[in-house]
Amino acid sequence: MSLYLRDLEVRLEQGEQTVRSRQLGEALGLTDAQVRKDLAHFGHLGHPGIGYPIPDLLARLRRLAGTDSGWTAALVGVGNIGRALLSYQRFEAEGFRIVAAFDEDHAKVGGIIGGVRIHDLADLPVVVAREGIRLGLLAVPPRAAQGCADAMVAAGIRGILNFAPRRLSPSPSTIVHEVDLSMSLVHLALSVALADAESASPCLHGILPR
Amino acid sequence: MSLYLRDLEVRLEQGEQTVRSRQLGEALGLTDAQVRKDLAHFGHLGHPGIGYPIPDLLARLRRLAGTDSGWTAALVGVGNIGRALLSYQRFEAEGFRIVAAFDEDHAKVGGIIGGVRIHDLADLPVVVAREGIRLGLLAVPPRAAQGCADAMVAAGIRGILNFAPRRLSPSPSTIVHEVDLSMSLVHLALSVALADAESASPCLHGILPR
Repeated sequence: MSLYLRDLEVRLEQGEQTVRSRQLGEALGLTDAQVRKDLAHFGHLGHPGIGYPIPDLLARLRRLAGTDSGWTAALVGVGNIGRALLSYQRFEAEGFRIVAAFDEDHAKVGGIIGGVRIHDLADLPVVVAREGIRLGLLAVPPRAAQGCADAMVAAGIRGILNFAPRRLSPSPSTIVHEVDLSMSLVHLALSVALADAESASPCLHGILPR
Repeated sequence: MSLYLRDLEVRLEQGEQTVRSRQLGEALGLTDAQVRKDLAHFGHLGHPGIGYPIPDLLARLRRLAGTDSGWTAALVGVGNIGRALLSYQRFEAEGFRIVAAFDEDHAKVGGIIGGVRIHDLADLPVVVAREGIRLGLLAVPPRAAQGCADAMVAAGIRGILNFAPRRLSPSPSTIVHEVDLSMSLVHLALSVALADAESASPCLHGILPR
């Protein structure tokens, strides 16, 4: 669903107004029939010969995801990555607002970055409850990650985007997604190395994973 | 392959010394047989009843990826995200070194962040050639992304990690991977919304995508 959302947003930015199931399928690596089935599940039937109206489809997907009414998020850890996240302009465009930041460093508490106040980590439960925060961005050093994640789960945060390079123990009530910047770079380097290896000896094609 | 690398690194950090194909398969969602086949392609045969020695397997994967000898990378765009990337400590641990940063803002040129010198964007081709840089991190505003990517490709950079929220035109000589922070947050919010919808009406299970 997030892939559909992304593809449709790019098309709209590029000025397209309608899209056919075949075009979506090609972009996302799905069959025609699968796309039509998915979009019917999202409550939308296309018009034969015309396709799907993109603005309408986007509005439905956003309503289903709840991003049309806005999600509030908390940032835990105001280091280099955390500061960049507080100043990142694209979250708001997608319907997200970071409404509070937290750090255990008392020298940072009380400061404001990107319009967001930095609170004492101990105040997490109170602020999360008051603001109705459901999402958290975790950007602390690896050794602090599990403890902070536990505090976020206990405070009622339902989804955590984890920037700390440390796998978190699963919790039944909270979904964790990882953003692992160094693994993204490893993955890219592997792709380049494999492309080089393939062009050097084409017989490797199909043996090495893409 | 990057998934194997990541899983093995986590196991080693947790003190494990050997791993069985079944354990790797469970962690990565692959069959036993597929894991044994993959690892044989990487040039490694496990020992029946014992499994694969993790340090040895990691060394082979890193050698194949070239990350054991180190990759040099360039950062283009020294804004909030760029500064965070320059100070990100984990790249070096994975075998990557950002050796040069570039910005078109002359007020930033000549500065040093995280030990890395900031160059004029116009010097990209010279510095990339001199340092043998093959990877680039692109962290500029959306409107500047395509122009900077074209300059990176022309300078001979083979892989680009794109943090700019703008899809780049493909180039035959350069691999582009996207790191889209706002889409990561959209994806997380969708997962939470779908989990909520499923627990509210279990019959949605299987209809809405996971």
